[in-house]
Amino acid sequence: MQHPIKAARADIPREELASQAAAVLARLRAKSPRVHCITNSVAQNFTANALLALGAVPSMTLSPEEIGAFVARSDALLVNLGTFDRERREATAIAVDAATQSGRPWVLDPVFVDRAPGRAAYARDLVVLAPKAIRLNAAEFTALAESEPSRDAVAAYAQMRRTVIGLSGATDLIADGERIATIANGHALMARVTAMGCAASSIVAACLAVEPDALRATSSAMLIVGVAGEMAAKNAKGPGSFAAAILDALYNIDAHTLADKARAE
Amino acid sequence: MQHPIKAARADIPREELASQAAAVLARLRAKSPRVHCITNSVAQNFTANALLALGAVPSMTLSPEEIGAFVARSDALLVNLGTFDRERREATAIAVDAATQSGRPWVLDPVFVDRAPGRAAYARDLVVLAPKAIRLNAAEFTALAESEPSRDAVAAYAQMRRTVIGLSGATDLIADGERIATIANGHALMARVTAMGCAASSIVAACLAVEPDALRATSSAMLIVGVAGEMAAKNAKGPGSFAAAILDALYNIDAHTLADKARAE
Amino acid sequence: MQHPIKAARADIPREELASQAAAVLARLRAKSPRVHCITNSVAQNFTANALLALGAVPSMTLSPEEIGAFVARSDALLVNLGTFDRERREATAIAVDAATQSGRPWVLDPVFVDRAPGRAAYARDLVVLAPKAIRLNAAEFTALAESEPSRDAVAAYAQMRRTVIGLSGATDLIADGERIATIANGHALMARVTAMGCAASSIVAACLAVEPDALRATSSAMLIVGVAGEMAAKNAKGPGSFAAAILDALYNIDAHTLADKARAE
Repeated sequence: MQHPIKAARADIPREELASQAAAVLARLRAKSPRVHCITNSVAQNFTANALLALGAVPSMTLSPEEIGAFVARSDALLVNLGTFDRERREATAIAVDAATQSGRPWVLDPVFVDRAPGRAAYARDLVVLAPKAIRLNAAEFTALAESEPSRDAVAAYAQMRRTVIGLSGATDLIADGERIATIANGHALMARVTAMGCAASSIVAACLAVEPDALRATSSAMLIVGVAGEMAAKNAKGPGSFAAAILDALYNIDAHTLADKARAE
Repeated sequence: MQHPIKAARADIPREELASQAAAVLARLRAKSPRVHCITNSVAQNFTANALLALGAVPSMTLSPEEIGAFVARSDALLVNLGTFDRERREATAIAVDAATQSGRPWVLDPVFVDRAPGRAAYARDLVVLAPKAIRLNAAEFTALAESEPSRDAVAAYAQMRRTVIGLSGATDLIADGERIATIANGHALMARVTAMGCAASSIVAACLAVEPDALRATSSAMLIVGVAGEMAAKNAKGPGSFAAAILDALYNIDAHTLADKARAE
Repeated sequence: MQHPIKAARADIPREELASQAAAVLARLRAKSPRVHCITNSVAQNFTANALLALGAVPSMTLSPEEIGAFVARSDALLVNLGTFDRERREATAIAVDAATQSGRPWVLDPVFVDRAPGRAAYARDLVVLAPKAIRLNAAEFTALAESEPSRDAVAAYAQMRRTVIGLSGATDLIADGERIATIANGHALMARVTAMGCAASSIVAACLAVEPDALRATSSAMLIVGVAGEMAAKNAKGPGSFAAAILDALYNIDAHTLADKARAE
């Protein structure tokens, strides 16, 4: 794998990340985009609530007869591979086709591709179908890209696949092959609530519905989620109260808080 | 569509709504009715928790081999069309048949019939099978009844279909073709928590298990949910804390609160 | 049914239960065992959150192509029969086989075997496949064992099936045919939150992943859950705030609290 984009890359300052996210958030709340989600049954409820809290409108049907119509009437699509079964694979084929036909952006979340052999191969087939963004963690990136998730490798993979990679971690890394954004927000309790990453991916989709620049949309989504996590942790006594509090935070987050709390490193 | 029942209709005063709901609630808590729910996977957990909080006992299996036995041992059935797939259509055919055979009331919640072409047709086939009540929102009513959800149109549709329509909105409208009840309780945060309407429909089913007058059962359920929403909003900081608080409110709501807070317009 | 183990049985003192549970908890948090869960869609989210709160790592895929690989890379398996369908039966056959092949402990939760005829027969077939523990309530025990859940009957069934029975109730009873533990912790609100028993069963699996003595693992899990329930009830205003608070309690519970609150009768 070559890394020809090394020189072209430049980090985006925290003020710019925050103001972009604030602009995306304002448009999201004004437009209330519809986001259709193919996601695992563990994550469906929390994902729907995260979208509603932020101001988007979720739908989640998987029925092959219906999903094409749902996607065509939505503003963005999420494909999450968690608890991946026949029903969801069939739904995914139809939904990605409908999104492509109708020009809707879609996001791939290759959950647990590091845990079962067939899943990584399936995810790679989906990458070819041109998701606007792929949100994942380090283990999933390694399994998908067959490469350690270094800054260079992430940028190179994004460039090669012509997509945006949103890599979650202690510091999030968002790259499109030309630009790299880093976000150092978030809280340890986020790893103690199931579907937090899945919900973050759905928020990437919601941001893509109102922001055509996929790097901006993805970094805005990840900043919003990270800052909301910090807001939620303030009064949380553990992961149960934290899960409720982060939904409250997604509802209450605003430009001022983003500007105040955004950290690029 | 003719509206021959216009003259016969009379609103039900708030005191009467509140005292009926209190009586239904007392019976519900004394009897702990079993409510079998065919509902979407997004809504299952919150629906089960809403029923348990209020005092009913939920079950949710969809397996064709078992659902007949479950429905026959239940006191009411909910059929919710959200995330509607083959498995749920097969389950629905068996469950509605079992409910009809054993004389159990059932409720239809035609979720998102306005979003996919086949779903409205399917919902209309179910309406013919005599649900005691149909709970829906304005867009779903329009798609189902092919008519704007005016007071007259709702009453006429209820009369024609010999069912009770429970139409959710800023003011809920409950009609059986002869009587109309209006309920002006509720809170804006209810629209920011997924499955709130689905849970409300399950509570309609629970009330039908203890109240044979379907208009009374439906209006009682919708009043209970609306007042619980107002109770929950008091200390909520957003949709996350609100979702927990409305379960607490369903657990704590009583005749006094109903009498105090019920609003008919 | 004979009861030859009557003389051999001895209750385990509360101090011993508490110190065993504290040791199991410490190992669980140090090792973060992976627990694969076949569970009903109502319970998946709360179960995953309970495991994460305590310090374990859940996975939940049901796909027949993948579940073998997931189980082989896990430290324990839960098989829960709630909302039991074809997909889950197929998954169960593969998963139990993978667990047996790779020497992983697995737990059976025969949810609602008292509610549908075929389910008890199916559960009995699973019992033959040697789960390390079976967690259930009184009605489920009666349907499974075809016997009232007396102390003797529970011990005899455990001995005959060479497993551990973890019977939930006002006083929990844990028996392996030689030893009996009783636990009198818990709170009435636990029955008002869906999936509480399912989550408890997943915690039994997590404890089995770090404690080979199945009676110790099961009684530790049930003590942890019961004490967490009491911690959660302290400030809960109803089942909604209680559900969040018990996740917080699973996150915060420690040796001191266990020693302080454990009750054997």
